[in-house]
Amino acid sequence: MIAPSTTLCPPDMLDLANAMADAVRPVIRRYFRTRMVVDAKSDASPVTIADREAETLMRQMISARFPDHGIRGEEFGLHQPEADWIWVLDPIDGTKSFISGSLAFGTQIALLHRGQPVLGIIDQPITGERWLGQAGAIAVLNDVVIRCSETRRIEDAVVYTSALEHFDADGGARCSRLANRARFQRTSHDCYAAALLALGTVDLLLEGNVHDYDILPQLPIIEGAGGIVTDWEGQPLADARQFKTVLMAANKGLHAAALDLLRD
Amino acid sequence: MIAPSTTLCPPDMLDLANAMADAVRPVIRRYFRTRMVVDAKSDASPVTIADREAETLMRQMISARFPDHGIRGEEFGLHQPEADWIWVLDPIDGTKSFISGSLAFGTQIALLHRGQPVLGIIDQPITGERWLGQAGAIAVLNDVVIRCSETRRIEDAVVYTSALEHFDADGGARCSRLANRARFQRTSHDCYAAALLALGTVDLLLEGNVHDYDILPQLPIIEGAGGIVTDWEGQPLADARQFKTVLMAANKGLHAAALDLLRD
Repeated sequence: MIAPSTTLCPPDMLDLANAMADAVRPVIRRYFRTRMVVDAKSDASPVTIADREAETLMRQMISARFPDHGIRGEEFGLHQPEADWIWVLDPIDGTKSFISGSLAFGTQIALLHRGQPVLGIIDQPITGERWLGQAGAIAVLNDVVIRCSETRRIEDAVVYTSALEHFDADGGARCSRLANRARFQRTSHDCYAAALLALGTVDLLLEGNVHDYDILPQLPIIEGAGGIVTDWEGQPLADARQFKTVLMAANKGLHAAALDLLRD
Repeated sequence: MIAPSTTLCPPDMLDLANAMADAVRPVIRRYFRTRMVVDAKSDASPVTIADREAETLMRQMISARFPDHGIRGEEFGLHQPEADWIWVLDPIDGTKSFISGSLAFGTQIALLHRGQPVLGIIDQPITGERWLGQAGAIAVLNDVVIRCSETRRIEDAVVYTSALEHFDADGGARCSRLANRARFQRTSHDCYAAALLALGTVDLLLEGNVHDYDILPQLPIIEGAGGIVTDWEGQPLADARQFKTVLMAANKGLHAAALDLLRD
């Protein structure tokens, strides 16, 4: 079970996280809106040269600074999975946005201590926006403290979903039940939607069938900004490689109201 | 009928178009990601203070420089509709994106000569990206010439749609028939999707039940970048205030392939 961590991120690890996000920016900028070699992974998501170069660079930086730390990356799998400290890397979350020239993507980094995320980063390498959160402590956008919204009613809530095609029929129906009651719904923003939830301009985020590296970097940011992350039954996320449903809400009242509509 | 214009935009009108886009940037930036008063128009789309202030400013600039020109704006309707030269203004296209903090919105400006669009601008006031097109002549992003893609096959095409909820059941089914064959589909980007089509990173754009001010500013940009704009039957857009279907394609081959799937 993944619970809000009470461990603060050690300063030298915070420094490394920022240094990694800094280092991958020029790599990603070099390939943005250029013709890229794109191949198909087993799950048919596009993988680009930029993805691989960025993750390789971050892995080298972690191994140089903290050789006993573990790594879980989107592109190159597990390294020292039994370590106390594990880095979770998603070099380009929102690859479809990236490939098609949209700014709705980001580099995601999480640091886990004994399975609990203590630090999360969403970095937009083109605009220079960096969201950083420490669970239970704080969330910032470019060093300015941010808070989730105080929107309480579904009717007033802006709902984002990263990709409707990730839901099965049941998930799609439950999502629609909520979205039809909301102020409006938007899609196709991946991690950028979580960043906007932490910023207070989006109120609810629904995800289905997502990987751990998609979500774990977002947890400390959302929770650091006062938001709540559970599955669609209101349970904490399991310690798993994939999550069938994820609900992120700006506050407790809205979280409860959303669960009422999402529950079977 | 709206056809690619052979009239080039006079330099003093081009200057005014750029000056208007410059002038509204600080207005829109002032309200971006802040709490705004939002009310509901008859079609339930959100209208913000930023929208109204930006359109008012542009109308004042047009009337001061070219008092005999006509104006069609999203917020304040028609002014001198019989004039030879008509400015079409959409201060914030993608209001839902704007309200929720996403960058997938823009200021749109078109200049029509006797009903035919000769100049179009899509300006992103936060990132400072400005797409500008002259029909049959050229399209640029921040003064760099851009071209639509050479993608020929539906299977290789990236398809954007601004909002699936704009389609009726028949339109949704036709859109899905095409999208299911495409490389992938993304939504919720409004005018920013048209900008990416002109840039060559998006290959097809499908719209349903959109207003003239949504589309007319995009025509000279798409056509200036070598793309094609018709309805879903392959006909030029009618000279109307609303378009039931719009298809934008990167090139002739892809346009024909898309029509094959869209036609009833």
